[in-house]
Amino acid sequence: MANIYLLRHGKVDGEAALYGHTDVPVAQATNEKINQDFAAFCQRKNITIDHMVTSPLIRCLSLAQLIASSRLLAAPKAIDAIKEMNFGQYDGVPFDALHQQPEHWQVLEKFWQDPVQQSLPEAELLTGFSYRVSHAWQQLVEQARQLEQNTLVVCHGGVIRMILAHVLNVDFRNPLWYTQLSIGNGSLTTIEVKENDTRVKHIAKPLDGFSTASEQVA
Amino acid sequence: MANIYLLRHGKVDGEAALYGHTDVPVAQATNEKINQDFAAFCQRKNITIDHMVTSPLIRCLSLAQLIASSRLLAAPKAIDAIKEMNFGQYDGVPFDALHQQPEHWQVLEKFWQDPVQQSLPEAELLTGFSYRVSHAWQQLVEQARQLEQNTLVVCHGGVIRMILAHVLNVDFRNPLWYTQLSIGNGSLTTIEVKENDTRVKHIAKPLDGFSTASEQVA
Repeated sequence: MANIYLLRHGKVDGEAALYGHTDVPVAQATNEKINQDFAAFCQRKNITIDHMVTSPLIRCLSLAQLIASSRLLAAPKAIDAIKEMNFGQYDGVPFDALHQQPEHWQVLEKFWQDPVQQSLPEAELLTGFSYRVSHAWQQLVEQARQLEQNTLVVCHGGVIRMILAHVLNVDFRNPLWYTQLSIGNGSLTTIEVKENDTRVKHIAKPLDGFSTASEQVA
Repeated sequence: MANIYLLRHGKVDGEAALYGHTDVPVAQATNEKINQDFAAFCQRKNITIDHMVTSPLIRCLSLAQLIASSRLLAAPKAIDAIKEMNFGQYDGVPFDALHQQPEHWQVLEKFWQDPVQQSLPEAELLTGFSYRVSHAWQQLVEQARQLEQNTLVVCHGGVIRMILAHVLNVDFRNPLWYTQLSIGNGSLTTIEVKENDTRVKHIAKPLDGFSTASEQVA
């Protein structure tokens, strides 16, 4: 048996926006706080991490590198397939700016209500995003299972939601799965990998002492 | 805005079994530990509890009364509609005993695979359980919303799962929702109640320092 820990990156330095493939940094102090809280969590729960992977986007990679160097682990492998969804034309555009242009804001509102049918301009389709994340997830599970390795995955809110939908067989086209389920910055979701199945132990447990400020979809 | 906190009772004193309406106690020391951890959590996050309700079953009621008296709150109101599902003939019968009788064990295994179609003998139907919990939940939300009261609900794993399915619009007939999603003893699930909707902030965050032992379905 092994566990896979899904750690969401810290709050990014930037205005509230859909951050998908846009590369935005996280303050060093925020990464250090998450790293400390994660270390304390591992110590208290007697958890060892054998293997680390990360999204290549800087908001994840910078945290993953910090955790790896603190724990004297090998450099985390960056996996393109666990990048956040690409939000196309609206990726990284502040909500405030979009809100001032009703024709764009309406498109965004329709997307929230039905993210499968009402895709954003030039954005990745939700079905394609689901496929790439599920495929990457299956490979991570197989590796964790075969090597019995506890794996830390530093990634994104959308990626964690998609993995949860996959593990729990929840319909990923359900809009409430995106708007009503909060995956906080710096939160940790634990998934137990057994011989024949996977089980969600905790969803979105923010690391102790790390309180999330306002939520962003990234 | 108000929050509703769903606190699952502690691990019961009894062999591993389906505990539904069977009234089994929790050790006083376990309740005291959850109470302490909950108090520390509220203090750290600056949370006030204005109102408490509980399942009338002793594993919830005993904890709710302890928390209420520690916080100088009014006695918690016991609500029948948030009792655990009634598992009929198998309610409270140790798994070890059922396992020795293949004809019963097979019935139980079919139930895990399809809890809607393969109901247990003399047990409550999952659809009826869903209806009673959803109805009670709507009343709790309305009250929290109107009075802007933070509400603590001491209840059961099955009840918390059913509320989550309702809030997230997940199909409650999905068997993996019961077998693959862990709602730990002493875990706390936070739901934000806004003017027009509800939002799951954290699922099954076990209170700090309270580590769950083996899991039981109750």
